[in-house]
Amino acid sequence: MPESTPAPAHIGILTISDRASRGEYEDRGGPAIREYLADVLCSEWIGKPVIIGDEQSEIEAAIKRLTQDEGCCLIVTTGGTGPATRDVTPEATEAVCEKMMPGFGELMRKVSLEKVPTAILSRQTAGILGSSLIVNLPGQPKAIAECLDAVFPAIPYCIDLIGGPFLETNEQRIVAFRPKKKK
Amino acid sequence: MPESTPAPAHIGILTISDRASRGEYEDRGGPAIREYLADVLCSEWIGKPVIIGDEQSEIEAAIKRLTQDEGCCLIVTTGGTGPATRDVTPEATEAVCEKMMPGFGELMRKVSLEKVPTAILSRQTAGILGSSLIVNLPGQPKAIAECLDAVFPAIPYCIDLIGGPFLETNEQRIVAFRPKKKK
Amino acid sequence: MPESTPAPAHIGILTISDRASRGEYEDRGGPAIREYLADVLCSEWIGKPVIIGDEQSEIEAAIKRLTQDEGCCLIVTTGGTGPATRDVTPEATEAVCEKMMPGFGELMRKVSLEKVPTAILSRQTAGILGSSLIVNLPGQPKAIAECLDAVFPAIPYCIDLIGGPFLETNEQRIVAFRPKKKK
Repeated sequence: MPESTPAPAHIGILTISDRASRGEYEDRGGPAIREYLADVLCSEWIGKPVIIGDEQSEIEAAIKRLTQDEGCCLIVTTGGTGPATRDVTPEATEAVCEKMMPGFGELMRKVSLEKVPTAILSRQTAGILGSSLIVNLPGQPKAIAECLDAVFPAIPYCIDLIGGPFLETNEQRIVAFRPKKKK
Repeated sequence: MPESTPAPAHIGILTISDRASRGEYEDRGGPAIREYLADVLCSEWIGKPVIIGDEQSEIEAAIKRLTQDEGCCLIVTTGGTGPATRDVTPEATEAVCEKMMPGFGELMRKVSLEKVPTAILSRQTAGILGSSLIVNLPGQPKAIAECLDAVFPAIPYCIDLIGGPFLETNEQRIVAFRPKKKK
Repeated sequence: MPESTPAPAHIGILTISDRASRGEYEDRGGPAIREYLADVLCSEWIGKPVIIGDEQSEIEAAIKRLTQDEGCCLIVTTGGTGPATRDVTPEATEAVCEKMMPGFGELMRKVSLEKVPTAILSRQTAGILGSSLIVNLPGQPKAIAECLDAVFPAIPYCIDLIGGPFLETNEQRIVAFRPKKKK
């Protein structure tokens, strides 16, 4: 039994949708992400939900605030990844990140493509800003668990590598992969 | 039976080849694209064929003209995607597009890789400019149907999302995927 | 039997590691690349090994020097492809290359993903500078052969296309794919 409990990990849940931000549409993506994380994480965490419109400057500001002011080690976005004019989440993510992580988008498109041929229209990406990993997910709630199932096994080790907290997963659900220590 | 027939969709067919543009080589890529589209589309369309050399500024100008002056909802390019010095089609595409669509290149390389290991040398991409989707294909005529078969099921819905005409496909050949309407 | 022997191909082997460059850690990636090349190439070649720290400006300078001064047709890097702050090999590669070759990173991540789910954290890429192909590999020695096995069949033809020497492979090990000549 640990002597002291580590501080809970802060995780940003960023819903990007003009209609949800104006209250014309119930946000279903954000709650789907929260439910997924509650199911998968067994170390302590606090969700930081934000709902904003599809404005690149607002998305950039929200990612920076969640990283720098809220201390999030992980920010999961939903929405704004398609080809339409208002879909600018990948551009905002790339604009603020210091490093891009192309493997996340590649793998998520690959698994979504097993379900629908329009998966190639999703421009979702991932990147690093400071000690935070930002991962874009599509807007469709049913695609959220599918995409996270594919990439989540790599997320805890990624957060270790960028100096974030040690996330532990419910291994019945997701086995977080960490290479064995070498000297 | 519809009361009025919608205007035919304009589709740019852009052959990019120094030798074909100088008449030293018969363009086989452009006709292969036209034949493919004739086979697959059952809504009305008009092809806008253009043959130019491997000059980045000319390729950019041709894409802009086909989009803005010719009203193309789709521009399919062939040629100029390899690693050689004169191969600059992806650079020209990226320079003019407002959004990049990485899933197209990923999927086309994946299917071509099942045929030849040199498929990884093809740098083809896709992107959006205004209401036009630009898709790069390799120069080899036999790779054209193979690549289009992989991505075409997603093209009509992509064009819907960017405000273009409603393309209908011959479902014996290609089933265009459109998600069921939600409010 | 050839009348004259062509000049040996120069191949850069660039280990990028703070610890290896300071001698705190034995470089195992560079020797693994050399051993792989010795096993696979049957035309003559000379390895140009370099060990440097994870500094973007140093990596850029080393790639340029190997290309321009050492006449390398191929530079294989190991290390610096992860998400940590000091991992900047892909950024350095992209900064100096004239063309990027996204298919290499996609395929290497795909094959590594069959082994470990954290393969998506590797940001490795490839690109062209002048008549040189630069390919990033991960730092782990055991991932080196795995990644090179996937992409090597396309490397000799790529080097043909950018004006480099004719590399021949040991076909028991790797079959270099070259399309049949057309007029």
